[in-house]
Amino acid sequence: MKIAVASETDKTEPRVAATPETVKKFVGLGAQVAVQAGAGEASRIRDSDYADAGATVAKTADATLKDADVVLRVRRPSAADAKKMKAGAVVVAVMDPYGNEAALKGLADAGVTAFAMELMPRITRAQSMDVLSSQANLAGYRAVIDAAAEYDRAMPMMMTAAGTVTAARVFVMGAGVAGLQAIATARRLGAVVTATDVRPAAKEQVASLGAKFIAVEDDEFKAAETAGGYAKEMSKEYQAKQAELVADHIAKQDIVITTALIPGRPAPKLVTRKMVESMKPGSIVVDLAVERGGNVEGSKAGEVVVHKDVKIIGHDNVPGRVAASASGLYARNLYAFVETLIDKDKKALAIDWDDQLVAATVLTREGKVVHPNFGGAAPAA
Amino acid sequence: MKIAVASETDKTEPRVAATPETVKKFVGLGAQVAVQAGAGEASRIRDSDYADAGATVAKTADATLKDADVVLRVRRPSAADAKKMKAGAVVVAVMDPYGNEAALKGLADAGVTAFAMELMPRITRAQSMDVLSSQANLAGYRAVIDAAAEYDRAMPMMMTAAGTVTAARVFVMGAGVAGLQAIATARRLGAVVTATDVRPAAKEQVASLGAKFIAVEDDEFKAAETAGGYAKEMSKEYQAKQAELVADHIAKQDIVITTALIPGRPAPKLVTRKMVESMKPGSIVVDLAVERGGNVEGSKAGEVVVHKDVKIIGHDNVPGRVAASASGLYARNLYAFVETLIDKDKKALAIDWDDQLVAATVLTREGKVVHPNFGGAAPAA
Repeated sequence: MKIAVASETDKTEPRVAATPETVKKFVGLGAQVAVQAGAGEASRIRDSDYADAGATVAKTADATLKDADVVLRVRRPSAADAKKMKAGAVVVAVMDPYGNEAALKGLADAGVTAFAMELMPRITRAQSMDVLSSQANLAGYRAVIDAAAEYDRAMPMMMTAAGTVTAARVFVMGAGVAGLQAIATARRLGAVVTATDVRPAAKEQVASLGAKFIAVEDDEFKAAETAGGYAKEMSKEYQAKQAELVADHIAKQDIVITTALIPGRPAPKLVTRKMVESMKPGSIVVDLAVERGGNVEGSKAGEVVVHKDVKIIGHDNVPGRVAASASGLYARNLYAFVETLIDKDKKALAIDWDDQLVAATVLTREGKVVHPNFGGAAPAA
Repeated sequence: MKIAVASETDKTEPRVAATPETVKKFVGLGAQVAVQAGAGEASRIRDSDYADAGATVAKTADATLKDADVVLRVRRPSAADAKKMKAGAVVVAVMDPYGNEAALKGLADAGVTAFAMELMPRITRAQSMDVLSSQANLAGYRAVIDAAAEYDRAMPMMMTAAGTVTAARVFVMGAGVAGLQAIATARRLGAVVTATDVRPAAKEQVASLGAKFIAVEDDEFKAAETAGGYAKEMSKEYQAKQAELVADHIAKQDIVITTALIPGRPAPKLVTRKMVESMKPGSIVVDLAVERGGNVEGSKAGEVVVHKDVKIIGHDNVPGRVAASASGLYARNLYAFVETLIDKDKKALAIDWDDQLVAATVLTREGKVVHPNFGGAAPAA
């Protein structure tokens, strides 16, 4: 059984899908592991670190991928990448499938069996495989560091001989994994933190981190929590009332961090241009949803936009801005899943297609797109 | 009595010497205050904010400075700047006098009375005037934010479903005001923090912030505390022993922040190239002494140098990187001092040349350099 870790073909992606720690574990399961030279460089992992962990370091992508049974990646391979793999090879990555049906067809045509880590069910057994959470956690941390770096005041209250520096007011919109870590990090830095979310359950979580919850708490709000823990879209009426409350609140903030995503749909617009313009000169807005269309009017992916003395931060790939940590957690997520695909006695792949995790994440198989959400037939039982 | 706040002539200086808060107080003392248009812009203070506080906003430096009795600045004016002021005008700023005797002569020739805020005695009465402390405090905070922004891992330990992210190891060299705030900020962010200083008193302060003290604690160390609270230079023998201990320690750190300054002398070299090279890929060194020659071999003022996968951060004017906070504290320091030069009944300048604070800080007077440290005669009693 050969496991391959090729360099990401997107050169702006600094993360890597395996670390010396996970390589060692795969070797312990009886796998041969090949890592492409330089694959870990942007995550500060040297080729020699992989070699010390038991991997073979291969010079080219072709040599790395040749005869591999399992290919570990951060991002979906292109069809060209997939054609370098053997027929039936298992590819595990963040596949970004929504709206990319043509790319999935390309993977099917190449004959690879593609698994999308972000479709992992949010059940207890799969917690250790939850790449959305592991990466969002780091994005939430990094959003606060990016805000603090752009902000031209100190975050904490400081009591000095020359008087008091007041604490920054930070407002976090969306209290999922990223939002909660943003709250925690801003609190660590001494900011006065408020937060909002459409789910009432978030109120208690926000309070437990020492932040104040800001929401129109009407009947719709109370009914809005969905089984999966995700936010469903709220009514137009609710959105209007909430927007008014939020608009008043934003005008008093120094830093606003937005983290609202709806799976498979464009990000909801939460901060209008007018709200941005209501903020004091030097205020900061961080839009963590910028790659999904953005929560903030005027944010641009990959840019820090200055609009009327307010900086709108729209960095791409925020987990990649703490690549070494992000790769560490992502590699563990992948290991936790791939381990379940391996028969430890036979030291070979043995995929149980009926397994809930496999069924939920497999996109392509035997030349076909098989996932029902992307035009595939339901998986064969 | 007219008080003038001109824009800084160094366009890279974002701080400003007065805020609406201090303008209001000066007006309360009976002063007319003129602020040059745009002077507060980089510190996020609008001309209208100054006007609301009672200042006149003047379009040009000439109009601002004309007939002013007191000129408030962040940095020493050039001779050309000083010539725009009336003879006998009081100029208060950070004068950077050491090694700049020619520039002081220029101020004397222009006929202005120049006060150097950084020469303020470190006595209780002058604590609120201590610009070195107020700005160093913010520099220490910002050093950690800059390090976190360049660092490609998270600072705190994070316990996640995908396992633990280990905390960053941060080593702060020099536990003065900047160092202590760097320790406090790194601790806030969840780092494991160690620190060192040549003064034994610092050990207790470091420990009180939750960091571990790293030093060769021999007899010389114990005797090294000086009356002024500053570090005196240690013997070659001590430096060698300490360097060895520090070298071993640095090799295990993720982030090193150096803050060692000796007044009027070049900064001591604390971190050699070899020590930098001993650090893991992706490690960070912040040299807060870079403008004084630097504590770190290879650091460059105004640059982030990458040396063998280690980033050496050498930003200029670090307090200016949190300009809005820095201006707020600096302006209060200036107000606290200038207030002592004013007769509140007569609403006019009334300088007591015998006052300890005046005598310690006055550089030029009546056409002459008068400060004994810079070739002047002792001030006339």
